Amino acid sequence: MSAVRQEITADSGSSIRIDSYPASEKVYIQGSRPDIQVPMRKITLSDTPANFGAEKNPPLYVYDTSGVYTDPNVAVNLHKGLGPVRHAWIEERGDTELLNGPSSIYGQERLADPATAHLRFEHICQPRRAKSGHNVSQMHYARQGIITPEMEYIAIRENQNIEAMRGTYKGQHPGFSFGAAIQPVITPEFVRSEVARGRAIIPANINHPELEPMIIGRNFLVKINGNLGNSAVTSSIEEEVEKMLWGIRWGGDTIMDLSTGKNIHETREWILRNSPVPIGTVPIYQALEKVDGKAEELTWEIYRDTLIEQAEQGVDYFTIHAGVRLHHVPLTAKRLTGIVSRGGSIMAKWCLAHHTESFLYTHFEEICEIMKAYDVSFSLGDGLRPGSIYDANDAAQFGELETLGELTKIAWQHDVQTMIEGPGHVPLQMIKINMEKQLEDCFEAPFYTLGPLTTDIAPGYDHITSAIGAANIGWYGCAMLCYVTQKEHLGLPNKQDVREGIVTYKIAAHAADLAKGHPGAQMRDNAMSKARFEFRWEDQFNIALDPEKARSFHDETLPKQSAKVAHFCSMCGPHFCSMKISQDVRDYAAEKGLADEQEALKIGMDEKSKQFIEEGAAIYHEI
Amino acid sequence: MSAVRQEITADSGSSIRIDSYPASEKVYIQGSRPDIQVPMRKITLSDTPANFGAEKNPPLYVYDTSGVYTDPNVAVNLHKGLGPVRHAWIEERGDTELLNGPSSIYGQERLADPATAHLRFEHICQPRRAKSGHNVSQMHYARQGIITPEMEYIAIRENQNIEAMRGTYKGQHPGFSFGAAIQPVITPEFVRSEVARGRAIIPANINHPELEPMIIGRNFLVKINGNLGNSAVTSSIEEEVEKMLWGIRWGGDTIMDLSTGKNIHETREWILRNSPVPIGTVPIYQALEKVDGKAEELTWEIYRDTLIEQAEQGVDYFTIHAGVRLHHVPLTAKRLTGIVSRGGSIMAKWCLAHHTESFLYTHFEEICEIMKAYDVSFSLGDGLRPGSIYDANDAAQFGELETLGELTKIAWQHDVQTMIEGPGHVPLQMIKINMEKQLEDCFEAPFYTLGPLTTDIAPGYDHITSAIGAANIGWYGCAMLCYVTQKEHLGLPNKQDVREGIVTYKIAAHAADLAKGHPGAQMRDNAMSKARFEFRWEDQFNIALDPEKARSFHDETLPKQSAKVAHFCSMCGPHFCSMKISQDVRDYAAEKGLADEQEALKIGMDEKSKQFIEEGAAIYHEI
Repeated sequence: MSAVRQEITADSGSSIRIDSYPASEKVYIQGSRPDIQVPMRKITLSDTPANFGAEKNPPLYVYDTSGVYTDPNVAVNLHKGLGPVRHAWIEERGDTELLNGPSSIYGQERLADPATAHLRFEHICQPRRAKSGHNVSQMHYARQGIITPEMEYIAIRENQNIEAMRGTYKGQHPGFSFGAAIQPVITPEFVRSEVARGRAIIPANINHPELEPMIIGRNFLVKINGNLGNSAVTSSIEEEVEKMLWGIRWGGDTIMDLSTGKNIHETREWILRNSPVPIGTVPIYQALEKVDGKAEELTWEIYRDTLIEQAEQGVDYFTIHAGVRLHHVPLTAKRLTGIVSRGGSIMAKWCLAHHTESFLYTHFEEICEIMKAYDVSFSLGDGLRPGSIYDANDAAQFGELETLGELTKIAWQHDVQTMIEGPGHVPLQMIKINMEKQLEDCFEAPFYTLGPLTTDIAPGYDHITSAIGAANIGWYGCAMLCYVTQKEHLGLPNKQDVREGIVTYKIAAHAADLAKGHPGAQMRDNAMSKARFEFRWEDQFNIALDPEKARSFHDETLPKQSAKVAHFCSMCGPHFCSMKISQDVRDYAAEKGLADEQEALKIGMDEKSKQFIEEGAAIYHEI
Repeated sequence: MSAVRQEITADSGSSIRIDSYPASEKVYIQGSRPDIQVPMRKITLSDTPANFGAEKNPPLYVYDTSGVYTDPNVAVNLHKGLGPVRHAWIEERGDTELLNGPSSIYGQERLADPATAHLRFEHICQPRRAKSGHNVSQMHYARQGIITPEMEYIAIRENQNIEAMRGTYKGQHPGFSFGAAIQPVITPEFVRSEVARGRAIIPANINHPELEPMIIGRNFLVKINGNLGNSAVTSSIEEEVEKMLWGIRWGGDTIMDLSTGKNIHETREWILRNSPVPIGTVPIYQALEKVDGKAEELTWEIYRDTLIEQAEQGVDYFTIHAGVRLHHVPLTAKRLTGIVSRGGSIMAKWCLAHHTESFLYTHFEEICEIMKAYDVSFSLGDGLRPGSIYDANDAAQFGELETLGELTKIAWQHDVQTMIEGPGHVPLQMIKINMEKQLEDCFEAPFYTLGPLTTDIAPGYDHITSAIGAANIGWYGCAMLCYVTQKEHLGLPNKQDVREGIVTYKIAAHAADLAKGHPGAQMRDNAMSKARFEFRWEDQFNIALDPEKARSFHDETLPKQSAKVAHFCSMCGPHFCSMKISQDVRDYAAEKGLADEQEALKIGMDEKSKQFIEEGAAIYHEI
């Protein structure tokens, strides 16, 4: 739990870093230009012991969301923020201009307010906006045939350096992808083409140059999101930033800041300036605070100002519940659990109070104009998602989904990147139709779901009830999975809950990657299994999604250092080990004079293995 | 963690009980004769608060594996064991006889050994065996058209008293069962017919009369198994019994005793005499101990004696790795993780050492003779199950599965009940073929799988990697799921790990029941969701699979008693609650003069609801 640390630095105030993962180092793969430096985590593995063949095990490269916080060569000063890795790319496109200050009224007020001065991030940059008449979305570039540095960065990142690992860890089962276009290698051109046709998004606001680009789409690695929300009363700004770091340390690909309360404007600035991953928000939450929580008093003007305020800070995607239409609202009255989305219920209340369609719906094209001026992506919210198994896949939910499809078409007319949010609570047999309907209704725009939870009866374990659904919908084609913690329905997650939730969702996403047959996905599994068979305990911990927990569980039973090089484990003990007997089987086969046995044992040499099996089988039959 | 308690009783030694679940009482439903008393847990729920309509919520009945330990009217003296609920049923069939003492040599030796006297269960009964020429298996009765009391008991138990709950908690989505024969109501005749055709088993040794009958088959509720193993050095016999009780308290349908070490004969006696659920073992483990761990020194005679020893104690099912054939063994040499099943590796080693088929395979019909004399069920072990994603679904695994199918046919010729064990480590997209192949190769004999784990990269979280696979294979038709704890691959599970593992598997099994459309499966979800919407916090805890954890998580954020009747929760706080807004939506709809609104809100009144929606939608459009 001490992995995120604050240190006092020589200059101004505190610096934050994340402890490196064990046996790991940060490496960068350079792209076509020196300023494309794609980070990966390189895990050094030990040699195979002599009795298993004494071979070298090359390092394992894995996707890394932790930013420069795990780079010992970089010291991050919280008060200065991260280096703007995308600055030159944005600048050289020549289609943006720096503003003199925030153009939102609220942003101006906060900046002028002496009472918030002590909370303010010290190095606020001038906000950037598209020049008049320009569209700065990645989709817009993609549709013009431009491969941006962001796209090339992503292609390198998605490939995970698998070429370097093919020798030892190869071997993967064919996937079944339900019609996805899984590529053997991700090229920058493929990234471009997927963004151009709307099948993937690159959430990357021009005001968030610190961002390390990533992509959300079903032909790429399945991503996960972790939520972060201040607990109004006590959290300091440093604590909020630390929560974000905690989330990316365990593998969060994006973080949603769902904070409410007084200083969310300033908190958001700090989070953005220090975040290497895309940040999403639900702007209606802040807009509601501006009208003291009275949903019916919300106006387009207040909401619009909030969008601009947040866009100029650098928020990368907005959840917008524009699909909640007036005629959908009564469809929820017969539900067992009504409307459970906060955004959805706010908009439903507004619609009822005004007897009209919501300003999100009626002003949707104006919202698109804002989105494309900063490259904020839509995350079209499912305000009417089911909150119980009983309410799954009902008319309200699917009615809204169809509206989200119509809105997607409009967004795409503006070249605005768009993903679609999904449920919620759905039993296992009804998940697939959600994916199929979303792909059809929303023209393959990326799907981003919360779980879904496959039963209601296990509060305290909803990371698990939902991971079952998440793995399945990820397999079916969902592009990003929003985590659910074990505190869901019960309380606010603490750090331990966040860690459990993120790792659980990494499992779901990885299970989906394997199932879809994402190239190279199985290498980490193979490396783990090889280490397991060879009793390389340290390597098993180091390859694990949660090395600390794996080690501590092992040490609970066998705490001694010697146990970590022992050729047995606590399950069977030293005298009775199935792994050891397996080795005996191999030795026996070798002893019987199979010349090619050593080579046959190497992973993936199928032809040799086949020959070995045939010969082996023959030998035993003849005796 | 204090739910299982030892108390000192007036007579001889300690009495054990399990704390009742909150707001729950043990009830019994009587069958066609007074001695068929089927236990259920009845959860009392509070009334709906006035602002939600002030209705009575009838009690919820749920399946109960905890035996009389949660019946305050019964005091269990560990040293005397449970009451033999099946005694009269077995006795009156008139096809068994009492023996003067154990007929196994080992059983006789242990009984005569003064050194083990202090460990011995005090009230050992005379063992019972089929009279010469008789077959006492439930399958044998079923095939003769006899509905045994066990079968009737099971029919009542599987129906879960859902008729009593239809009024309030009804409403269920259609399942998709992949060709299973899901029944609207389970009749005793259906139980009989499923057992007769081998699609379900009733593990119920005639020497385990204390057993509360249960069934394993894909047209019944999905069951889960928890493993129990003594930790050689320190465990006392009381501790072993307590571990079993801990497992059934959280919902284990069967318990496998995988103990090794010195006093397993005596420990097993204690466990059986105090267990209301079927107990399974892997007899080869004990046989191996009898030859000091030297696999190659195992003989048919030693193994046979072990089978009889355990059968006469009352073990209900035996895992027997008779499918490991000599020609399969070399198929594992090219694997990444070899043979990971302990039983499988023992047999593989034996086969190699002797250059011949195993005594389990060659003496299979003699084993059947033993099984039918006591009604022990086969759990045909998958000794060659894959231990890594890489090794999934390979020739060794599927070759063994085909052999298990051949053995099933032989077992059925003897009317011996049989289920089939399955993997292991299998990626998501390759699970379904496991189920399909098992159904085909083994003629729909029940499948009983370990997980499967859907990735190798998360040691410390393998309850989750495997629950994903378990929920899916349960949905596809697997009848029983063997739990995996979070310590898997790392160490020995402690009580907390067992609890987490069991509850995680209850989730997987329940998700599968919902997905298959098992009748009434959704009632508990509906009751939970109704309580959730109505802010009945105490009811939410009480309905949960793990009431203690749900309550403690809630109390971490909102510890005050008043929060448990508050109409909000910690996620949104009192001023901003989507559930509350949903109620506003309902109130608004009511206020607008929809006469039928109150009725429309009631769950399941689809016709009225439809009408309501139509009218509701119309109203908003007209305004």
